[in-house]
Formats: sequence, structure tokens, C-alpha cells
Amino acid sequence: MEDSTATMSKPTWQEVAKVAQNHRDDSIRRVEPPIPEVPDPDQLPLDRTDVPKYLLSTEETVITQTAPEDLVASLASGKYTSTTVTNAFLRRAGLAQALANCITELLPEQAMARAKFLDEYLSKHGKPIGPLHGLPISVKEHIGMKDLGLNAGFVSWWDRKGEDDALVLKILNNAGCVFYARTTQPQTLMHLETSSNLYGVTVNPFNSQLTPGGSSGGEGALLALRGSCLGLGTDIGGSIRSPSANCGVYGLRPSSYRIPVSGWSATMLGQEQIIAVLGPLSTSLEGVKLFMKTVISGKPWLNEPSLVPLPWRDQESYLDKPSGKKLKVGVIWHDGVVKPHPPVLRALQEVVDKLKNVPSVEIVEWKPYKHDEAWSIISSLYFCDGGQQETAAIEASGEPWRPLSKFILKDNPWVKRLTVEEIWHWTTKRETYKTEYAKVWNDTATGTSETGELEGVVDVILCPVGPGVAPPLDCARYWGYTAQWNLLDYPALIFPVTKVDPTMDVVDQDYRPMNEKDEYNHQLWKSGPEKYKGAPVSLQLVGRRYEDEKVIEAMEFIKENTGLPFANFV
Amino acid sequence: MEDSTATMSKPTWQEVAKVAQNHRDDSIRRVEPPIPEVPDPDQLPLDRTDVPKYLLSTEETVITQTAPEDLVASLASGKYTSTTVTNAFLRRAGLAQALANCITELLPEQAMARAKFLDEYLSKHGKPIGPLHGLPISVKEHIGMKDLGLNAGFVSWWDRKGEDDALVLKILNNAGCVFYARTTQPQTLMHLETSSNLYGVTVNPFNSQLTPGGSSGGEGALLALRGSCLGLGTDIGGSIRSPSANCGVYGLRPSSYRIPVSGWSATMLGQEQIIAVLGPLSTSLEGVKLFMKTVISGKPWLNEPSLVPLPWRDQESYLDKPSGKKLKVGVIWHDGVVKPHPPVLRALQEVVDKLKNVPSVEIVEWKPYKHDEAWSIISSLYFCDGGQQETAAIEASGEPWRPLSKFILKDNPWVKRLTVEEIWHWTTKRETYKTEYAKVWNDTATGTSETGELEGVVDVILCPVGPGVAPPLDCARYWGYTAQWNLLDYPALIFPVTKVDPTMDVVDQDYRPMNEKDEYNHQLWKSGPEKYKGAPVSLQLVGRRYEDEKVIEAMEFIKENTGLPFANFV
Repeated sequence: MEDSTATMSKPTWQEVAKVAQNHRDDSIRRVEPPIPEVPDPDQLPLDRTDVPKYLLSTEETVITQTAPEDLVASLASGKYTSTTVTNAFLRRAGLAQALANCITELLPEQAMARAKFLDEYLSKHGKPIGPLHGLPISVKEHIGMKDLGLNAGFVSWWDRKGEDDALVLKILNNAGCVFYARTTQPQTLMHLETSSNLYGVTVNPFNSQLTPGGSSGGEGALLALRGSCLGLGTDIGGSIRSPSANCGVYGLRPSSYRIPVSGWSATMLGQEQIIAVLGPLSTSLEGVKLFMKTVISGKPWLNEPSLVPLPWRDQESYLDKPSGKKLKVGVIWHDGVVKPHPPVLRALQEVVDKLKNVPSVEIVEWKPYKHDEAWSIISSLYFCDGGQQETAAIEASGEPWRPLSKFILKDNPWVKRLTVEEIWHWTTKRETYKTEYAKVWNDTATGTSETGELEGVVDVILCPVGPGVAPPLDCARYWGYTAQWNLLDYPALIFPVTKVDPTMDVVDQDYRPMNEKDEYNHQLWKSGPEKYKGAPVSLQLVGRRYEDEKVIEAMEFIKENTGLPFANFV
Repeated sequence: MEDSTATMSKPTWQEVAKVAQNHRDDSIRRVEPPIPEVPDPDQLPLDRTDVPKYLLSTEETVITQTAPEDLVASLASGKYTSTTVTNAFLRRAGLAQALANCITELLPEQAMARAKFLDEYLSKHGKPIGPLHGLPISVKEHIGMKDLGLNAGFVSWWDRKGEDDALVLKILNNAGCVFYARTTQPQTLMHLETSSNLYGVTVNPFNSQLTPGGSSGGEGALLALRGSCLGLGTDIGGSIRSPSANCGVYGLRPSSYRIPVSGWSATMLGQEQIIAVLGPLSTSLEGVKLFMKTVISGKPWLNEPSLVPLPWRDQESYLDKPSGKKLKVGVIWHDGVVKPHPPVLRALQEVVDKLKNVPSVEIVEWKPYKHDEAWSIISSLYFCDGGQQETAAIEASGEPWRPLSKFILKDNPWVKRLTVEEIWHWTTKRETYKTEYAKVWNDTATGTSETGELEGVVDVILCPVGPGVAPPLDCARYWGYTAQWNLLDYPALIFPVTKVDPTMDVVDQDYRPMNEKDEYNHQLWKSGPEKYKGAPVSLQLVGRRYEDEKVIEAMEFIKENTGLPFANFV
């Protein structure tokens, strides 16, 4: 009798996955009114972004397609109740799951109760509870919620529960938001795609044969389908930016130590060589700003002391200069390692051409400084234990290795178990590289002011987000265009530009790849541009460390002056 | 013939030390007019602080006893030339060497040429070159200067040279200062005293049988003797604060990542678990502020990208509050591990008594939160390689281990070679502890404002700097009162209060020590209070992370309202 638990057979990983999926499906089934049936995937077009509009009410469609800044205004004024808005997003998120497999669970009871509370608060006090009053926000699964699962993409972690809400969630909650949806992530969290053995493969709503990117790919797909207008992702090598780009939404990797990261679940806690950050994905640029401003106004450093008490500094302009030009943009066309695919170069060319017509803009070439070395440093520091914790977490359940887990951990020549001295060695290399890059940036100055300030320095770098648009499953194997900025800890903002057009984005048949990675990437496009039809093409705007505000201001300026985006994404 | 270098016998460590001392003596001999002879040490009183006044001209005495903020005013107005001021400090620093053994070298030619250049600049342009125009600044040896030695206290490193000036020196230089003296530090840099096999023992000018503290003890002794009014030290466990306190001057351990640290020499480069900082020691509080403001105004983060771009925020008051009290001070009398000696408790009592009479001050008890655990964490993280680099640097020359090197590295039960997982383990403990301490601080709030701000929170902590005043050589063995704030990364400011008076600071014969460390410390006092006669008694004012400006403002307020210091130190 005493041995009953010991003799109970451990469930297989397939059984655990079934439990996880049933839990998810059950949570979706509890949304009221019930979410309409979606046609069989085989019957659906590759581009599924239009489908929800046909299955929801006009009001639901309008609400869920409204930008977050307009929604909070309507919620604060009482034009919409939080109950109505939350219910609309719950239903659209349920559809998004059927269309893109991006949800780990919905929280219908909790969200509707919270919305009701907020509606009552507004009607009783005549004012909103905070700047996010009534706004539904979606959250990547590994950002902990009290008493809810916290699996971080590992089957063996399925039973883990959040002890408390993550600090960032507490602050957003204080600002008045509603949490209603949790989203998928890949095994290990270390893919630029989103597939796990718990939930399977998340697909790109714009083209279901492509990946939405990752690791915050559940968020990316959910936002693409407008099942969310503001979501939370995390990024240590591109995990906010890859899905933002692949899914045609805005996304910011903030500088480190501005947004709280406590309360999330991941391997290698205590690892500080490369700092993972938390940041927003949103259907609007204003949504990104709203998130940053709200969280930082909550003074998170008082509770998470590793954070820096930098207020959100948007009172002053970072672009208006006494001397001359308003905005100096450094452009990276090619990182010197892997050449971007034609649609990326076309998008970059279109933006640059428009900017060249703006008199107060100056465009200069940014020569990438040893981006290949940057990758050797960051990927040596990602897994200082040689990937032992990931390996243990995968193998504990017997689940198979997903191809991209194997790619980044087992086939990656830089992953080695390090000694203390080796950690110091690579950390020193990291700091040296950061210092050299700072010098490269300072050297763009054209002079020095009377008070010794550098003048004419590049304000922002405009560059690709990756070596192509969303690739087919298991092909996202070059991190350089995003991980570069993680190593340097520069803020990096993704914005949608256009869509792939196979008639314009033709293969350069004469191109001679520079190396094996370049060859792999070149083949991805060469094997058929038509495979990428309709995929969003996005770009990245990068600032110096802690110049998050400037990057956003520059983006606003660029949007206004170029009429971006050049295609419709909703 | 080819083997000639290989067969040359390596010099003994004693021979290297002799070369180092000759180099130093020669540099002092080149000062003009020649520095007066100092009587035989045996003929000198224990308190040597008065000696320079008898050996220098009245003008030299007056200049060198002027506070840095007044000196820069006189230099900017042309009342003094930099040549005159620099020469006075060179001469007094030379005397300080004879009196306290605190110098590794003087830089007479370089300093006088620089002073001459600055004098010419002022006379030509009619204005100073920067906020530190003409001011001599002394520098701890391991802060690199181009082409000068950089031994960091190790005999085997004697031949190392600075490749470039450290970034902080470049910024100070741009602001107009003059570097003229380099100061002693202990073997390994990890003592709270200052003795090495290169230069021997630096002594306390107030009582030559005591230590000036360390590791920036050369600075402390030089400032006590007014051979400098502003000096640069470094601190990873108390190395700025111990000498400031023991030598009766002001000293600040700033929050990390505000003041540049690049370009210094030390073991374990790349170690980031516990951050060493660079900061000022000064004969005045205003000097501390002048240093901070000047360096931060130089935007060091543009060249050292690990720094945080927090400007020096002294435009607004951090103490004026809409609601009530001006300053809430938490007092630590005893850290719960080692009870401070009677003079420290007396000084604390005197300051607290005066503050209690100030209506806008509120004094509360600060219950130390697990300071013993803090020590276990920080000393586990100091030497993650088990001290191998220090051991190698010592043993390469055959120099003997100094007792305090042995104490901190070999007799310290927390020093072990760590694996990656152990580093992560202790780092996680560190972060957990920091978060808990933040909560303790937040919990001092008496309420919450309408906008959700905590109200009535403690502004600063007032506490001892150590478990006693300057001890006899090799007895500084309890780091808890300073290392605590390194672990938490809180800014901590030292200020002089009074001096030891054996008739008042009597032994508590009934005291029962709580543990072995407490017993050791108790014995130090019990064995004879008269040994400490004349030693400065200082205290420490501590703020939350990055509240450096608030700590200084609070100190100004406390000084004004209590008439500190209560004894003369010059």
C-alpha cells in the first residue's frame, strides 16, 4: 500500500502532451458565447488572417482590430466596457488557436471577473483605475502567473506552477489591464520558431506553411490574427523580434534592466552573461510605448533591485538638434556573414528611398563591425554549462529533441561546458567587443561642440531583422541579425514594411554565397520565392544602449515621413 | 649566445621590491625645491598629521589644507596658479611618504608641465579649461596610467605598464585636473589594510601604530596628511570606505555602473558576480560631489558601454516631501554579528542625539536583515576560481603571503573553486537576498499616496563603517559593515565624526561575545583602548541603489543640522 505512488507508472510524454492540450481546449470551450467552428485546415487558404472577420460579429471585429491606445481611450471614456472588449478578445483568441495553434490556455473566468470589476470601478468612481483600464493583454506562457502552469516548453515541467504573478504582471494589473490568454513557445525557449512536444507547431497566420517565428511565436501569431493587440514576450537572441517581424506587428527588445524579469520560468536561472529581457509586441507603435511607459512608471526597481531607475524619458525630443539635421540613420544592408533575401533588401531600399527624400534626414552606410565574432561570443555565453540543464529538462520526460533544439544546443560548435576562467575569458571578450562597437558609433561623429559633445553622430541603425522573412518550419537557423543587438544590449524595434511579392522578389541566380551559412540561406530562397507569398517583410530600428525612447521617437518620425507601412496587415 | 636571456637569473622578490622603492624614492627626489628631511620615525609622535605644517611654507600649508571646491574657485579666478598648487601638493605628498609610506611614485615633471600648460591656458583664454582646472588629484596605483607601472600590489606584476590612461582619468583630465601622485595598495587588493611586499606597510597618520585601512589606504593616509585633497580609490568590499573612515576623510562607494572602471589592473578580469567600483576620497564632502558630477557629466557610458546613462541628478531635492518630515534615518547600531567598539557606538549616539533635536528628522531603528548570510554570499562570489589567480600572482615571484591575503583567501571557508552551476546558485541567492532587502526597505513605508507611491519610507541608513576604528596592523578581519553594501550595491558615504578618547571609550567588561568573530573583535578593544588614542571615528550613510545624489544631499543636511564633525582632523 505504501508503495502505491512508486508503482504507478509515469505517464509518457505523449500522455502529458494530451493532458496539456485537453487543458487548453477545455479553457477555450468555456468561453461564452461558444467560439464558432473553424473550417478544416485543409479547406483554409494559406493566409488565414481574414478568417476571424467572417466568424465574429462586426462589433467584435471592430474592437479587436482597434489599436491599444484607442482602446484604452474608449475604455476610459466608457464607450466600450471592459467586459465587451475582453469577451471579444477571448473569442478571437479562441479562433486564433484553431487557425495558428498559438494558445496554451485562455483564462475566461478570471478575465471576465476582472473586466466586470473594472467596469464597476469605472461606473462607481467615474474614472479609470489606471492607464490600461480594461485592456486585455496576452502573455507568453513562461512569464509566471500565480497557481497556473509554467512549463517553459518542456514536457517534464508540465506540473510546475507559478508561485506568484511575475512582477511585470503585477504592475500591468495595477495599471488596470486584464489577462486573458497565454501563448505558446518552443522547447527550450531557444528557437527563432515555435514548436514543442506539448502543443505542436504554431504556424504563421499570413502563410500557414511558414513559421510565425519565435520564441514568442504564440504572441506573434495571436497578434497577427488580432486575437490580441498587446502581448508580452521575452528575448535573449531575437525572441520578441523574430515573431514581430514574421507576423507583421511592432515589437521592442528593450535595453536590459528596465523591464522586470522576475517571476518567469526558464533554465539557467542565475545566468547573467547574456541578459534576457521582457518586452512588448503590439499591433501599433503606440502600444509599444504605452507598455514601456506604464511599466517604468510603476518604479519596478523598488521591487526588483537589479533594475535601473531610469524614468521613461519622453518629455524631451532626442532628435531636435541645435545644429542641422534632425535624424541620421546608419543603414546595414548585409551583416557581412549572411546576405538577406530579396524581399528584405527591397523593403530596406523602399524605406531608404523615401527617407532620402526627407530633407531633415541623413542616410549613411553602417559598416558592420565583426558581426561574425559577435555570434561566437554570444553563443559561447548562452549555455555556459554546455546545455546540461536543457538536456536534462528534455530528457526527463523522454520527449524527442525538436530539430531546432538540436541545432542550437548539439550542433552548435560554440556550446561547451565552461570553467570559471573560460566564463571570464568570454565575458572579457564581450566587454571588449561592446567597447569597440561604441567606438565605431562615436566615430560617426562629424565634430565636437564647444562643450565637448559629439556632434553628427548616427542616431539609429536601420537594418534587417533576419536573413529573410518567415521561413518554413525548422529553417530559422541564422540568429545574427537579432542576437547582435542582444550582445550589445541595444534597444531594437521591429516594424512592418510590406509583404513578399514573388514577382518582384526574384532569385539572384548569379549570387555566390560567402560561406556555409550564407549558402544555406541562399538555398532557402532559391528553392522557390512563391513559397513565401504574402509573408510580412519587416525591418529593425536599433539605438544605443538605453536609448529606447530615442528609437521610438525616431520610428514615429520615420512613419510619419514615409507613410509606413506600405502594405495592409489586417 | 641565443640563450643569454634564459640563463640570466630571475631577480628575487626582494630585488624587485628594492627597484620599486628606488623608483619611488627617485621620483620624490626630483621634486623641487627638495622636500625637507623628516625626523627619524622613532623621534616622531604617533600622531604625525601636524608634522608637514612645520616643514612647509605657510602658503604651501594653507593651499594644501584648502578644500577642493575652494581650490578650484581660487584656481579659476587666478588667485592661485596651478603651478603653485601642484608644487605644494607634490611637496606635501613627498612628506606624507616619509611619514606614512603611502606613495608608489610622484609624477613631478608630468604634473608641473601640465600645471604650466593650464596656467598658460587660463592666462590666454581668460577662463578655466574645465571644472577641475588646475586641481591636483592623487590616484591609487592600480588605476592605469599610460606607460606607467601597474602592479596592483603583486611583486610579479612589477613590470606591467598601463597601455593607456584609464577612462576616468581621461575625463578628469578633460575637466582640467593634474595627476601628480600614485598611492599604495595591499597585496591582492583584497585587504582592509595596506601592506605589500613591494612597498611595505602604510601607516595611519593619526596613530602610526594603526593601519590607515585599505585597500585604498595609500589614498587615505595621503589625504589625512593633506598631501592630497581629492583622490581616487576602488571598492569591492570596503576599500574606499575603510581608509576614508580610518583617516578621517570623506569617501563614497558609488552605485555600480556610474563611474568608469575600465583601464585598471586586477586579477579576475571578466568577473561580474560582485562589481568593484571606483570612487572618490576627499577632505571635503563637496569634493566627493565635485568628483561625481564631473565624471558623470563626461558621459562615460558613451565609451564604456556597461555604464548606465544616469545623469547626476542634483537639480531637484530628494528630501523635500509634500507630506511632513524631511529626513527619515534608519539606524543600525550592531549588525547582529559583530558588535562595534565603544568609540563607534559613542559617535553614533552623538549623531543620533543631535539629529533627534532636529524637528524635521525622524529616527527609526533599522533591524539588520541577515547580514551574516550576506557575508556568506559575497565571500562565496568574490573568488569563483578559488583564488587561483591571486595565488598565481603571489607565487610567481616567490614573495611571501601577507597575513591578510592568507586570511581572505586561504582561511576563508567560503572561498572555493566553483562550477558553472555553483556560480548560478550563489548568483541566484544574491538576487534573492537583494530582493528581500528591497522589501525590508519598502516595508518601512507608513502609507501609500493617491498615485500609488510609497510614503514615509526610510531615506538613508546611518551605521558603523566597521566593527571599530583603525586597528593595529593585520587585525582588520571583519568586512561585514562595508561588504554588506557592496553585495546590495547601495551607495555608501563615509564621514568623520570624532576621535577616540580612551577615557570615554571604556571596555564593557560584562560583554559576552556572540560568536568567534565577535570575540576576536571584542579582544581588540579589551586589550587596551589607549592603543587607539587619537584615531578618527567615522560613520557611514547608506542609500538605496542609485540614490547616490540623495545620500549626499542627506549628508549635507545632517552636517548643517548637527555641526559635524565634532573634532578637528587637520
